[in-house]
Amino acid sequence: MEEKNQTGQHTRTSNTNCTRPIRCIVKMGGASITCKSELEKINEENLEKVSSQLKQAIMKSSTKLPGMDWSKRPGKPDISLNPDDFGDHSVTDSSRFIVVHGAGSFGHFQASNSGVHKGGLNKPLVKAGFVATRISVTSLNLEIVRALATEGIPSIGMSPFSCGWSTSERNLASADLSKVAKAIDAGFTPVLHGDAVFDEIKGCTILSGDVIISYLAAYLKPEYVVFLTDVLGVYDRPPTEPHAVLLQEIAVSEDGSWSVVKPKLQNTSNQVEITVAAHDTTGGMATKIAEAAAIAKLGIDVYIVKAATSHSLRALNGELRNNIPDDWLGTVIRFLR
Amino acid sequence: MEEKNQTGQHTRTSNTNCTRPIRCIVKMGGASITCKSELEKINEENLEKVSSQLKQAIMKSSTKLPGMDWSKRPGKPDISLNPDDFGDHSVTDSSRFIVVHGAGSFGHFQASNSGVHKGGLNKPLVKAGFVATRISVTSLNLEIVRALATEGIPSIGMSPFSCGWSTSERNLASADLSKVAKAIDAGFTPVLHGDAVFDEIKGCTILSGDVIISYLAAYLKPEYVVFLTDVLGVYDRPPTEPHAVLLQEIAVSEDGSWSVVKPKLQNTSNQVEITVAAHDTTGGMATKIAEAAAIAKLGIDVYIVKAATSHSLRALNGELRNNIPDDWLGTVIRFLR
Repeated sequence: MEEKNQTGQHTRTSNTNCTRPIRCIVKMGGASITCKSELEKINEENLEKVSSQLKQAIMKSSTKLPGMDWSKRPGKPDISLNPDDFGDHSVTDSSRFIVVHGAGSFGHFQASNSGVHKGGLNKPLVKAGFVATRISVTSLNLEIVRALATEGIPSIGMSPFSCGWSTSERNLASADLSKVAKAIDAGFTPVLHGDAVFDEIKGCTILSGDVIISYLAAYLKPEYVVFLTDVLGVYDRPPTEPHAVLLQEIAVSEDGSWSVVKPKLQNTSNQVEITVAAHDTTGGMATKIAEAAAIAKLGIDVYIVKAATSHSLRALNGELRNNIPDDWLGTVIRFLR
Repeated sequence: MEEKNQTGQHTRTSNTNCTRPIRCIVKMGGASITCKSELEKINEENLEKVSSQLKQAIMKSSTKLPGMDWSKRPGKPDISLNPDDFGDHSVTDSSRFIVVHGAGSFGHFQASNSGVHKGGLNKPLVKAGFVATRISVTSLNLEIVRALATEGIPSIGMSPFSCGWSTSERNLASADLSKVAKAIDAGFTPVLHGDAVFDEIKGCTILSGDVIISYLAAYLKPEYVVFLTDVLGVYDRPPTEPHAVLLQEIAVSEDGSWSVVKPKLQNTSNQVEITVAAHDTTGGMATKIAEAAAIAKLGIDVYIVKAATSHSLRALNGELRNNIPDDWLGTVIRFLR
């Protein structure tokens, strides 16, 4: 099956229908769950809080659930498993979520030192970098799957490379959503990630978590999308600058243009935000705004919010869908009907 | 595409052609690379030796190669990466290998305590066990990929679940070999493993490494298959019993029957070996003989050999293909033309 995706590229895909709609796609930003300044270091405290909030949103439970990671952990007590903890009745009221995470301090070192994103798999350094990048990002994926499973979320790691996702000139060329849909229908929470993949023209490249999110949103049409980041949301200038203003609501119109609805800015024009986006040298926030606007244009609310806060919990729970409370801090990006 | 596999089941598969033939499929038996008596413990010494032997067989090099695992390891010195180590010229003379590993002391605890192999994903305990089993086996897969990459082998983890492999009443129902073939064509060594997968009838089950090997062998037609185990080969009785005799050569005939060619046994009949096979309560050796005979019937030599020995090195290198030296210890299973 060949279709045109939202950016007009032809993409091979397969039957993507879930039996019931997806509630939410969550992006765990690399900066929110890893320590960006230290190579391959997870921000354990944040990851634990994010996992606990996801448990509340997905499993609809604020009490402790029996864990699903029964593996040994260095420095942790031995596994104690009591099968009776799980009960006999099927759990049917969990919410259908997909988690996609970035790489943060995993993968970047390996990718940038080898040039995997630029392609050229016949070069020994690029091939080695492809292997090293996948080892690093799949290590992080495993840790995130374990953190979610520890909270009682039936999480399943699904590496885009293994699932057959590939690109052509860095644009998504092939993505088999049927496996993701099947896992969701079976009651699991798939956990995808930015990955090194094959590229039809360049040989290989890096497929970012943000591109994966856009694609999943376009085809699986979740009720809402949440980007978990390490700042409160999108600002009118770098958030470390004095007088930086948090943009709380952005409206996207039919023609793709967008404007700040809240707060009322003195000097409001689209130019402002485009300049704003440029402050993020990693491309993280710039990509996020562009991708978020494209998702919002599909009629899907997008929340950009600081991970592991009361604000992220409300976003994940879907509490913001009809009404944004005055005390909620974050950025909502919506289609203006 | 629907085809009948060697055991007569209908299996959906996809384009499986590699551009060049596969040289060898290696099964790393769980018992040979993990400590079976201790939960989730890798036999580091054996894994290192096996990886080094595979490097010699795949990369055709007995000298140290630059490593491809650039991730941090607890207790290990920091990564030192020198891009110049990799040189500019393409490596074209590496051999095309596929590695499949068992679970050993990974996965069994999680699977047997939840009954994943029996199916019933709507039961909370089975669903949790599915998650826990995948965490355990993918942890082992990551460690094996890292061990191979450390030796300089461009290893790529490919989880059967993520690759879309599934069963029907525990028989393989769907297996996408095109991804494996594509990875091999790009110069990588795919590393697959026994995994928890979806079953069309039972909901879920365990797909064993041995079933994966049989399937790969039938469709990818390697020159030879090596089973790495923790004993020298197949014996006429439990190898711990006095006077146990190593069966060095077994011939499989057109009708599927098989007989011991070497050594000449006093009391030789097929009944003997079938009884012999029953000594292995884990089903490991029994399954191995049956699967090995089925592979041999396709005209593919099968070597069952003790891991991390001079005998396994000779088997992996393909030195036994025309002539079995008298001082080689192991079991070869061959089609009798």
